[in-house]
Amino acid sequence: MAEIPSSCYAVCLLISIVINVLLLTHQYRGWNQLSWSQTAAAEAEAVASISCSDHGRAYLDGVIFDGKPVCECNTCYQGPDCSEFISDCPADADDGDPLFLEPFWMQHPASSALLVAGWHRMSYTFNDQTFISQLINAAVFALSSENSSSPTRVVASAPYYPLYKSQIDYFETSHFHFDGDTSLFKNNSEGSNVIEFVTSPNNPDGHLRKAILQGPSVRSVYDHAYYWPYFTALPAPTDEDFMIFTISKLTGHAGSRFGWAIIKDEDVYERMVTYMDRAEIGISRDAQLRALKLLKVMLKDDGREIFDFGYKRMRDRWKRLNQIISLSKRFSLQEISPQYCNFLNKIRDPSPAYAWLKCEREEDTDCTAVLRAANIIGLEASVFNADSHYVRLSLLRSQDDFELLLYRLNELVTKEHGADHQSM
Amino acid sequence: MAEIPSSCYAVCLLISIVINVLLLTHQYRGWNQLSWSQTAAAEAEAVASISCSDHGRAYLDGVIFDGKPVCECNTCYQGPDCSEFISDCPADADDGDPLFLEPFWMQHPASSALLVAGWHRMSYTFNDQTFISQLINAAVFALSSENSSSPTRVVASAPYYPLYKSQIDYFETSHFHFDGDTSLFKNNSEGSNVIEFVTSPNNPDGHLRKAILQGPSVRSVYDHAYYWPYFTALPAPTDEDFMIFTISKLTGHAGSRFGWAIIKDEDVYERMVTYMDRAEIGISRDAQLRALKLLKVMLKDDGREIFDFGYKRMRDRWKRLNQIISLSKRFSLQEISPQYCNFLNKIRDPSPAYAWLKCEREEDTDCTAVLRAANIIGLEASVFNADSHYVRLSLLRSQDDFELLLYRLNELVTKEHGADHQSM
Repeated sequence: MAEIPSSCYAVCLLISIVINVLLLTHQYRGWNQLSWSQTAAAEAEAVASISCSDHGRAYLDGVIFDGKPVCECNTCYQGPDCSEFISDCPADADDGDPLFLEPFWMQHPASSALLVAGWHRMSYTFNDQTFISQLINAAVFALSSENSSSPTRVVASAPYYPLYKSQIDYFETSHFHFDGDTSLFKNNSEGSNVIEFVTSPNNPDGHLRKAILQGPSVRSVYDHAYYWPYFTALPAPTDEDFMIFTISKLTGHAGSRFGWAIIKDEDVYERMVTYMDRAEIGISRDAQLRALKLLKVMLKDDGREIFDFGYKRMRDRWKRLNQIISLSKRFSLQEISPQYCNFLNKIRDPSPAYAWLKCEREEDTDCTAVLRAANIIGLEASVFNADSHYVRLSLLRSQDDFELLLYRLNELVTKEHGADHQSM
Repeated sequence: MAEIPSSCYAVCLLISIVINVLLLTHQYRGWNQLSWSQTAAAEAEAVASISCSDHGRAYLDGVIFDGKPVCECNTCYQGPDCSEFISDCPADADDGDPLFLEPFWMQHPASSALLVAGWHRMSYTFNDQTFISQLINAAVFALSSENSSSPTRVVASAPYYPLYKSQIDYFETSHFHFDGDTSLFKNNSEGSNVIEFVTSPNNPDGHLRKAILQGPSVRSVYDHAYYWPYFTALPAPTDEDFMIFTISKLTGHAGSRFGWAIIKDEDVYERMVTYMDRAEIGISRDAQLRALKLLKVMLKDDGREIFDFGYKRMRDRWKRLNQIISLSKRFSLQEISPQYCNFLNKIRDPSPAYAWLKCEREEDTDCTAVLRAANIIGLEASVFNADSHYVRLSLLRSQDDFELLLYRLNELVTKEHGADHQSM
């Protein structure tokens, strides 16, 4: 065998090394360009590659078998790959389901794919005080009796979440009306049906609550928007007949407008469905997919990581706020005691979503204005149907907002001490 | 200089070639695994990498400058990278914007990212006949006059979209009620305000429509859900005072529940905003982001490609349906003439979203039942407040559904001929 000359090896090696460098550069660029998006990208492509014979589709949020999404067949097809036609199946030309455009989007996968970052648009886009909406209205429509001689009366205990009144007033029909504070509830001699909204823990003051009214004509709706370990001890698993929830205060995605209800009475459930149908045909599928994704991330460790993260943050905020307010005689905060939490299996410190701040001086009849003069915007007590010596301060906003709030409050309390010294 | 021996070159070359093979295999696997998802992934990562000094955020659907997303700063910060504090800025502790959890999601980018395929969940999830919803209710609430002595009367011309009646009946307040068919509209001697819904092109029959009622007490709401080149010639750009639209029949994403309105009267606009605020705080941001993405894809070529795709598909369906029904004496279809389209700049053939099929025999007083007996499910005319010799057949569903519809109709018409022969 003739020996290959060194020069030939040298040229080959040079070429090979150049290829090494090019490949490494390319690959490094690839790694560098895309990182955290690749898991979601791979998931979406895997689901899209499942073959359903063009008579069905597998979905990221669809039916799962053996841990994997499977084909959901069009009306008249069946089988694991939707290839079997159901021979006696009727032609459904009933509703306006616009699937005629589906093939267009399948032909343009790259341009129409959307990668939604987990932190995308968590904030509300405008400054109001509303959190859940359609569920509340749906509950009122579902629970108010069309056949009763007098309209259903809706009540809540002050201080209460302002949307109950504003929404119910706005949508008032001949079947229901908002009747104000539970404590002012007059005897029910006319035999009206009553809906009591019970916010637990309460917005604004963070206290756990139970229904006040009882009896066969009373229905309690438990609003559990804040019933999560971030904000409160959970003394027991909640188990009421009618409970409403939202991801707004669970994953923090208020902008997704996603809520759910647990309803034990089947008739009431059906009436809720009727409301959804008449009002909105359910909420956006995009929001549902988003919520699913987020809840799956949370559930990986039964929420331990996020609950721990959020609880510690809220507890630290409450501590720091208390340190400042405790130096003041002019202002006070609601008292919340450490309490055993059945979920965290330990006694936990208070960590409410809101401070329910009181101006202690009798002459401070508009506590919101007192704070406003100190460049702090709180929410006035009147909207909660409460004494205007109180004001609500939100503690669950961005770190920037919270730090500034502490800074301004500290200024205000320091001035109070300066004034004390002057008056001495 | 000592010459390097061949054996040394050979070993180096071997190593280099092995590295090349490994790199190529890895890279090929990478290419093979992910393809159409990478554009969206790169977009999302690019936006996420924009630095806003932890006092703001750039968004995929956010503010654009020079073609690129820029920082949207937190309330009290400014500057291109949000690094400048606005010194006299008030501390906003007003609303419950739950941004405290934002850092959590930013720490978990890979697990919380979501890649939404363009064709994800286009369908409605249940079989009803409703398309737009909140906009209709919002329009009625916004246009009905609270201060009038008599309630606002809402009308539409039969055959009309059933949701107008069902939704307005359901939400009826003391300020408005549904008053039936425009043609039966009695003289307005009591001076009520009137809202006329004008669906153009009309659901079910596809005809372009104009408002029938006129006068200072009349407000027309143009429902343009189907005013797209798929379904109708556009004789002129539409320019009414109050127009509502939806992406359901534009991109085909009915499941996203995304619509919009063009309103010329600012007071009416403000009242629409009040409705949104009271009822739902706007729709899901996820749906808005989705709609933005889809509309951007469409707008790349002014919609030419998708409009052409959809128009041809709907036109071909109408042609094939006509070929079958033209062989029948028992059934007929609505007549729609070819018409000049100002958008496509040509005369175009008819391509309605629905067939408004008529049973011509006098004794076929329930046309829906006649079709049902032939295993075809249409939507009965009574819900459109129309003569039950008619039935609506949806033509915009999946190709599977359409092919089956034609197959069953063909059977039905063939039987009719068999019966004719027998009776001869």
